[in-house]
Amino acid sequence: MTSISAAALQNALDQIRAVVGPTGILTEASDMAPYLAEWRGRFKGNSPAVVRPANTEEVAAVVRICADAGIPIVPQGGNTSLVGGSIPYEEGREIVLSLSRMNRVREIDPLNYTMTVEAGVVLTSVQNAAAEVDRLFPLSLGAEGTAQMGGLISTNAGGINVLRYGNTRDLVLGLEVVLADGRVWDGLRRLRKNNTGYDLKNLFIGAEGTLGIVTAAVLKLFPRPRQSITAFVAVPSPAAAVELLARLRAASGDAVSAFELMSRRCLDFALKHVAGTIDPLSDPSPWYVITELTAGTQSDAFQETVETALGEAFEAELATDATLAQSETQAKQLWFIREAIVEAQKFEGGSIKNDVSVPVSRVAEFIDLAEAAVAKACPGIRPTPFGHVGDGNIHFNLSQPEGADSAAYLARWDEICHVVNAVIFALDGSISAEHGVGRFKKDEMPTIKGPVEFDLLRAVKATLDPNGLLNPGKMLP
Amino acid sequence: MTSISAAALQNALDQIRAVVGPTGILTEASDMAPYLAEWRGRFKGNSPAVVRPANTEEVAAVVRICADAGIPIVPQGGNTSLVGGSIPYEEGREIVLSLSRMNRVREIDPLNYTMTVEAGVVLTSVQNAAAEVDRLFPLSLGAEGTAQMGGLISTNAGGINVLRYGNTRDLVLGLEVVLADGRVWDGLRRLRKNNTGYDLKNLFIGAEGTLGIVTAAVLKLFPRPRQSITAFVAVPSPAAAVELLARLRAASGDAVSAFELMSRRCLDFALKHVAGTIDPLSDPSPWYVITELTAGTQSDAFQETVETALGEAFEAELATDATLAQSETQAKQLWFIREAIVEAQKFEGGSIKNDVSVPVSRVAEFIDLAEAAVAKACPGIRPTPFGHVGDGNIHFNLSQPEGADSAAYLARWDEICHVVNAVIFALDGSISAEHGVGRFKKDEMPTIKGPVEFDLLRAVKATLDPNGLLNPGKMLP
Repeated sequence: MTSISAAALQNALDQIRAVVGPTGILTEASDMAPYLAEWRGRFKGNSPAVVRPANTEEVAAVVRICADAGIPIVPQGGNTSLVGGSIPYEEGREIVLSLSRMNRVREIDPLNYTMTVEAGVVLTSVQNAAAEVDRLFPLSLGAEGTAQMGGLISTNAGGINVLRYGNTRDLVLGLEVVLADGRVWDGLRRLRKNNTGYDLKNLFIGAEGTLGIVTAAVLKLFPRPRQSITAFVAVPSPAAAVELLARLRAASGDAVSAFELMSRRCLDFALKHVAGTIDPLSDPSPWYVITELTAGTQSDAFQETVETALGEAFEAELATDATLAQSETQAKQLWFIREAIVEAQKFEGGSIKNDVSVPVSRVAEFIDLAEAAVAKACPGIRPTPFGHVGDGNIHFNLSQPEGADSAAYLARWDEICHVVNAVIFALDGSISAEHGVGRFKKDEMPTIKGPVEFDLLRAVKATLDPNGLLNPGKMLP
Repeated sequence: MTSISAAALQNALDQIRAVVGPTGILTEASDMAPYLAEWRGRFKGNSPAVVRPANTEEVAAVVRICADAGIPIVPQGGNTSLVGGSIPYEEGREIVLSLSRMNRVREIDPLNYTMTVEAGVVLTSVQNAAAEVDRLFPLSLGAEGTAQMGGLISTNAGGINVLRYGNTRDLVLGLEVVLADGRVWDGLRRLRKNNTGYDLKNLFIGAEGTLGIVTAAVLKLFPRPRQSITAFVAVPSPAAAVELLARLRAASGDAVSAFELMSRRCLDFALKHVAGTIDPLSDPSPWYVITELTAGTQSDAFQETVETALGEAFEAELATDATLAQSETQAKQLWFIREAIVEAQKFEGGSIKNDVSVPVSRVAEFIDLAEAAVAKACPGIRPTPFGHVGDGNIHFNLSQPEGADSAAYLARWDEICHVVNAVIFALDGSISAEHGVGRFKKDEMPTIKGPVEFDLLRAVKATLDPNGLLNPGKMLP
């Protein structure tokens, strides 16, 4: 990436201002600050301007101006990915292109089970708009009140309902994308079936803004469930949890929409630090599962099915205790535990985080091997594994040894992550299950991918962004 | 495409024979014949050799030899697509690379709900292997006893369960692909979540063998349903059918796995020509639906739900009569009708076929407009629309006017298809919903795609197959 002259930059910014108007461009440091760091403060950057176009035509015009001037662009949504993909680098050469003003729901078609939204629509707004027409948009994750659809699509976000409804990729029927040269690809198709040509849509989904800028999308909607059962189950081991999941899926006809594993230490931290957390069961267990099953019809039979399956799990020693929420309030209390364990880790000193996945059948093996490996590298380290075991996706977070120095512990971040990653590689897993690569893991890419796949990735990048102006230095080193 | 000398060709074939052995290469016209035409006889071609490698290494070696010699390759599976994508051209420059000997199931992991298969495994074998471990592989279509997984993946095949389980694309977790230069991309991942890099997998799925040769795949499995309800419903119109579908989906919690619409004429043809076809209802109706709903648990409540929803549909005048199969035999009788209507069209003279899709909410509008348009172009023409209305995918087939000359009618194929396509374009639909482009529809691609998307498709092709040796002249003109 070569720098352009100050005069050329100023000229381009003037042109951009003419396109987006004075409210569409921020150049004061104080105005730009929220766009130049993510909320944890782990990634920070600099930029000559934050540009906030109001519609697709403005995005296209801005990209054309930048392409002509050679100015790189960092597209930004809600800025919640945690891997730094939406934050510019320190050098301050890239403009930030925020999609947040493009926040219209363009169309809802309940009969076609689709909704067309702009990139800047926040996830909770999508969920609510679907509910208003008695439909479900199933994507759900911690940052849903801030995360924007464009970013969720560009990072192929996961969340708690992947088991039943798939990743964001599976929820998108069509896309509108501004290409690196400023042309607009109108792929806003509302079709369930269309076998004409290569699947460009999936190339842009999960590309972290490095191949094009997603400006709108057609989303799939689903019927809303009519009955929901939430259970908190004590299990003796991760292996038992995986077997329990397979039994629940089979017995319920794939009605399991969420299945979250957590260790006792996770619960202990939450009970200690987060007000409102309850321990739903009387005796402690080394592992727990929170699971939700949903059905389209309200029937006693569904509840009986779940109770019978849990009863059989007790007999098979796959579970030792369980409680079923008797009301929506109780269900919320159980799900609150899942949120509290994320929050609680902040109060136990440094926490090194790994967002990893393995085949579901190898989750237990992964946790055993990884716990042993990190204990060897750092005696006293306190693993707090939790996550979407139904997708094989474990947030293998590691709290520092009690009484250790936080800064010294966190300085070992890369080293400890490499210990975890070695286990992941041995089990054919992924070192970024749902958060993406961003700035954070890009240097691992040649190793993860091997020479053939890495060549293919670079060839795709060179084809769609030959001048390397779209989110440079993200995802690929 | 330039020809190579006879000596260079012979030299390459000798090298190929050394790789695959004498049983792996066919050069006699009589041996090659089944590989050079599809079963309807619509597409025929010539070839210097049909090569049948036994494993991925042999495929890679053959591709390297062809790449060096400049010999184009037509990959071939079960040869059932009906659009000529797997048939070489008449000039006889391309070798046919049949994957049929690569027919091993490499691995089944019931706990991970995955199966790894080679490209040549026939679809029914995959379905059976899944059933043996109490799992479901939901892809199901007419040609399932012949179609091979590599071809199904390369054409992103659809079928009757797309509504519930998605297209083939949605059923694939990982791929192994031999690239145009003979390198092997090992993307056989068994992960539900893996956000590292661009989605190469979906680029090869549905690419009709023009970007690489699929040699193996990791497939998603599902729990087997425990209860199935099949209903044959008389509906007054396609619009009523679409509304009925939305109600059934909502009432049953998305338990509708198939929902097939057909006109009375379809049923009449089947009753007249196909022995064993029954008319399940006493009074004739202009339109019918065959639908299947499945549940994970056996319960009376499920049956009651469906009956209640149908009762409400009668009151809302969305349906006029219905019968529910009382046994598996009865269910098979109802589904036999769906198969018989395809067969029956052969006996009514020439039939011009359109595999099209529109948003589900526009199916009724499409049928009305398209019937009017073709009647104007060809008075007396007899439309026999049927198909997967839940996906917006209608097989808009058109039997000749009674007593017309078959050959003269079929000579108007392109003209009549263009009349249908004009309606499809007006409704934002697709002119190839599930069969693909192949040789048949490639010349439509610039029109369908528009300049931006067509440029992108060509750029992708040029990146992955720079010398244009993989299935040349298919999909893209």
